[in-house]
Amino acid sequence: MSYNLLKGKRGIIFGALNDMSIAWKVAEKAVEEGAIITLSNTPMAIRMGDVNQLGEKLGAEVIAADATSVEDLEMVFKKSMEALDGKIDFVLHSIGMSPNVRKKRTYDDLDYDMLNKTLDISAISFHKMIQAAKKLEAINEYGSILALSYVAAQRTFFGYNDMADAKSLLESIARSFGYIYGRESHVRVNTISQSPTMTTAGSGVKGMDKLFDFANRMSPLGNASADECADYCIVMFSDLTKKVTMQNLYHDGGFSSMGMSLRAMNAYEKGLEDYMDENGKIIYG
Amino acid sequence: MSYNLLKGKRGIIFGALNDMSIAWKVAEKAVEEGAIITLSNTPMAIRMGDVNQLGEKLGAEVIAADATSVEDLEMVFKKSMEALDGKIDFVLHSIGMSPNVRKKRTYDDLDYDMLNKTLDISAISFHKMIQAAKKLEAINEYGSILALSYVAAQRTFFGYNDMADAKSLLESIARSFGYIYGRESHVRVNTISQSPTMTTAGSGVKGMDKLFDFANRMSPLGNASADECADYCIVMFSDLTKKVTMQNLYHDGGFSSMGMSLRAMNAYEKGLEDYMDENGKIIYG
Amino acid sequence: MSYNLLKGKRGIIFGALNDMSIAWKVAEKAVEEGAIITLSNTPMAIRMGDVNQLGEKLGAEVIAADATSVEDLEMVFKKSMEALDGKIDFVLHSIGMSPNVRKKRTYDDLDYDMLNKTLDISAISFHKMIQAAKKLEAINEYGSILALSYVAAQRTFFGYNDMADAKSLLESIARSFGYIYGRESHVRVNTISQSPTMTTAGSGVKGMDKLFDFANRMSPLGNASADECADYCIVMFSDLTKKVTMQNLYHDGGFSSMGMSLRAMNAYEKGLEDYMDENGKIIYG
Amino acid sequence: MSYNLLKGKRGIIFGALNDMSIAWKVAEKAVEEGAIITLSNTPMAIRMGDVNQLGEKLGAEVIAADATSVEDLEMVFKKSMEALDGKIDFVLHSIGMSPNVRKKRTYDDLDYDMLNKTLDISAISFHKMIQAAKKLEAINEYGSILALSYVAAQRTFFGYNDMADAKSLLESIARSFGYIYGRESHVRVNTISQSPTMTTAGSGVKGMDKLFDFANRMSPLGNASADECADYCIVMFSDLTKKVTMQNLYHDGGFSSMGMSLRAMNAYEKGLEDYMDENGKIIYG
Repeated sequence: MSYNLLKGKRGIIFGALNDMSIAWKVAEKAVEEGAIITLSNTPMAIRMGDVNQLGEKLGAEVIAADATSVEDLEMVFKKSMEALDGKIDFVLHSIGMSPNVRKKRTYDDLDYDMLNKTLDISAISFHKMIQAAKKLEAINEYGSILALSYVAAQRTFFGYNDMADAKSLLESIARSFGYIYGRESHVRVNTISQSPTMTTAGSGVKGMDKLFDFANRMSPLGNASADECADYCIVMFSDLTKKVTMQNLYHDGGFSSMGMSLRAMNAYEKGLEDYMDENGKIIYG
Repeated sequence: MSYNLLKGKRGIIFGALNDMSIAWKVAEKAVEEGAIITLSNTPMAIRMGDVNQLGEKLGAEVIAADATSVEDLEMVFKKSMEALDGKIDFVLHSIGMSPNVRKKRTYDDLDYDMLNKTLDISAISFHKMIQAAKKLEAINEYGSILALSYVAAQRTFFGYNDMADAKSLLESIARSFGYIYGRESHVRVNTISQSPTMTTAGSGVKGMDKLFDFANRMSPLGNASADECADYCIVMFSDLTKKVTMQNLYHDGGFSSMGMSLRAMNAYEKGLEDYMDENGKIIYG
Repeated sequence: MSYNLLKGKRGIIFGALNDMSIAWKVAEKAVEEGAIITLSNTPMAIRMGDVNQLGEKLGAEVIAADATSVEDLEMVFKKSMEALDGKIDFVLHSIGMSPNVRKKRTYDDLDYDMLNKTLDISAISFHKMIQAAKKLEAINEYGSILALSYVAAQRTFFGYNDMADAKSLLESIARSFGYIYGRESHVRVNTISQSPTMTTAGSGVKGMDKLFDFANRMSPLGNASADECADYCIVMFSDLTKKVTMQNLYHDGGFSSMGMSLRAMNAYEKGLEDYMDENGKIIYG
Repeated sequence: MSYNLLKGKRGIIFGALNDMSIAWKVAEKAVEEGAIITLSNTPMAIRMGDVNQLGEKLGAEVIAADATSVEDLEMVFKKSMEALDGKIDFVLHSIGMSPNVRKKRTYDDLDYDMLNKTLDISAISFHKMIQAAKKLEAINEYGSILALSYVAAQRTFFGYNDMADAKSLLESIARSFGYIYGRESHVRVNTISQSPTMTTAGSGVKGMDKLFDFANRMSPLGNASADECADYCIVMFSDLTKKVTMQNLYHDGGFSSMGMSLRAMNAYEKGLEDYMDENGKIIYG
């Protein structure tokens, strides 16, 4: 079902890998909603993933680029304006990676070169992207720039490690640049804080399946899917949200406003039985 | 321009008074987007305002009701389901009033009967509305309930008085009921925290014109208008935001994420000149 | 161990019932730290509890009063100034009760007279207390007023019911009055958001023991005890926190900043085993 | 006046430059309150500033170290444990610097090597400090680690530039490490979000004097001074706040909870007069 919400708009989608990716869904829906787009990812991700097929299906040019390279980002904006024959109306940043997580360095044993990479890839790339766009005057008035975030930016989840810090930095960049780009060109910059999602990247997080289950039981509406996230991104790219900026928007079935749900407590309680003595009293550890 | 975002949906809009009202704009846009609706307001507001003309224009039944009366609210839901021939998909609560503000009672000289009225009209009415709807099973699965709020729920604005407390209570009710109604029927409950808006109600707030100016200069995108707020409400009623619940969504041109803008400081600075000595040094009061 | 942090200060402690009460511990520590105080609670609570013994032990007058009655509150301030021979430096509000919770009315079946009582007793009483004090000029410059709150003001906990809304309202009142009383007399108004605590009141909350366990495992430092809360109250009454106002201060071992801890997940995970198929895959409900 | 709040405790204070520094005041008060301490700053700051005099006055060893160097930080902890003859109980991180701000690079023209330095000096140094301490087992059970932050971490202030992002990252590190260090050794990690303060560093921020004035008029209690901030730090180092962790604590006279004060609006309004037409109507820009 299409509403033509993005009719006549031009966009760039960073970070689609395969059909589990949120960025992949956003690309599909954006085109369904009438946009024309380009796709960008790293050369390696393009080789490993299926983004070329997506490009073919959607008639979208695929532009290989390292999102930590200012030169590459400038090239992406230039090529996109050429390919789409005009300035850009929306951008999705769906990029994140932590070498510390990959190498199983715990948070109290971080490698600082790796931390720099985590921050550069997952957060500073967002600044570079916006700064490159602004210098090139590549974004139309009232354009919309989005990045995907996670509630770990506000609350600590074991095992999420330095990605939590990267997401905090990412959300701060959205605010800081949202001010500058808003006052000068009415461009809005926001982040969507999405439920844990079973993407290729998400699946790599320690204990992801259990966290996914916990979030799902905590959230009155259950976890938000990649498809539903794409719907929300479309809305944030459309002309119906022109005055929303510098916000972190929770798209999580209610998780962020929950302290404890009955459903999650029921599962938790079963786990507690091992901690009870023969009289049913809880033994506090 | 219409996207058919609410095609086939049924809604109730509480609180339209005249064509400056946000609720008025929401009603118009909801119908443009394909919904059928009813309108409700107090008998007095219907008499004083223009809601009957709006009803005629939109083909919407106007139902007089006191939103602090459970019986009246049940009647509104019953009549609406009859008039619209089915269960309700979306509800807007745009209701607020403080007798203390009207009677110029300052916050350190509140009349407590009036405070109870402020809370009852501006916040508890939202609970009554949702409880009535739920008991009548009046809302469809994946329905969407919205109330309008203001950033005074989080930060103190001089002169906003007990309405700040009412808005805090309102937002809490959205969270509390969002959990219950979400887990049971996937109904989402949110509040939109809107820029100061020059409605009939808004104009009554002390120093509103200056506050409006300050907010406008602080916000990189400027204040959000009633029309733009209506767009955002439509989006929150649509199927594209099905997993957003228990949230307070700032629709304010970025105000809520601003500490100080250059534009606001420029105006402020001019005001400071009186506080400077002959050497240009600021005399701190 | 005493530091003389409150030497020469006069205080009023509302809400001590028995030696499990946080207010009880605050009273004891305040006196240890050099303060002189009065105690206040309802006539019924004084009859049912042990506050008279506490008064004797601490040399503190016990003043029976209904905290929802402006007249009673004025009387408490007057009598306290007499008994303590001077204006008041600090006040603790540790008062909360929900008839809906007691009568097991669920949140989607609230009795509205009871809701009014919940709000009046648990939140509006705080406004009445401060307004009465201000009108009587009963608080010294740089005085400190505190109320006890709970994180349910921000996030929904099943079973906490309309007390969540009361706590939101309470925290809003602290901000609203903190502005007024701060600018006029440098009096600070704050709330402390305390861990679930095994007081007589706390024990009444549905599933409290499990919630207590969950919070304890989530919090890196474990739940904060009533004794530790009293320490924090003392600090907030002292001259060392003179510029802290309009804040909600989490005293919870870190709970409020946690998304999921390893310890809590371990208990949760055990509970999940029932939801796994024979291959160890989680069956999402 | 001393309370002996830190009697028998050992601390390290990073970042004292001269007697305007918050860290300087903290050092003085910590010693007054019974602690023994060491002081650390960069070799250059030690040469340019007066920290050696402070060290002499307080009987505190001054240890030159680059807080971005893991080796240097390890050396500081080792030397401090030697000099103080035991493990450390409290640490203050009062370190921040932005080469982009210094070189007047605006936020939409950042130099990324400089951004890396901003983050490394102002935020990552905090992680390095804690990781070094933890690896050396240098902090006692129930120790307290603090860093100084600013509300720009949550809201955008023009001219604060990439320091806003650094402060967001800093506060995230406090949460992330607070979890780890709390669960393992009951060490608490917090940030204090301080009013704009007329330190040597603060004075360098663009338009600082006006911002200082605005914050002062917005805050019901006025801006918090460096001396008052030191008091609050002492409290957070003491045994009276043992269960407070992973928090960002506003010490700002109420600024963070204000939307608009009458006092600030009065100054603002005067500045608006230029924007009014001859009939006194505001001309919205």
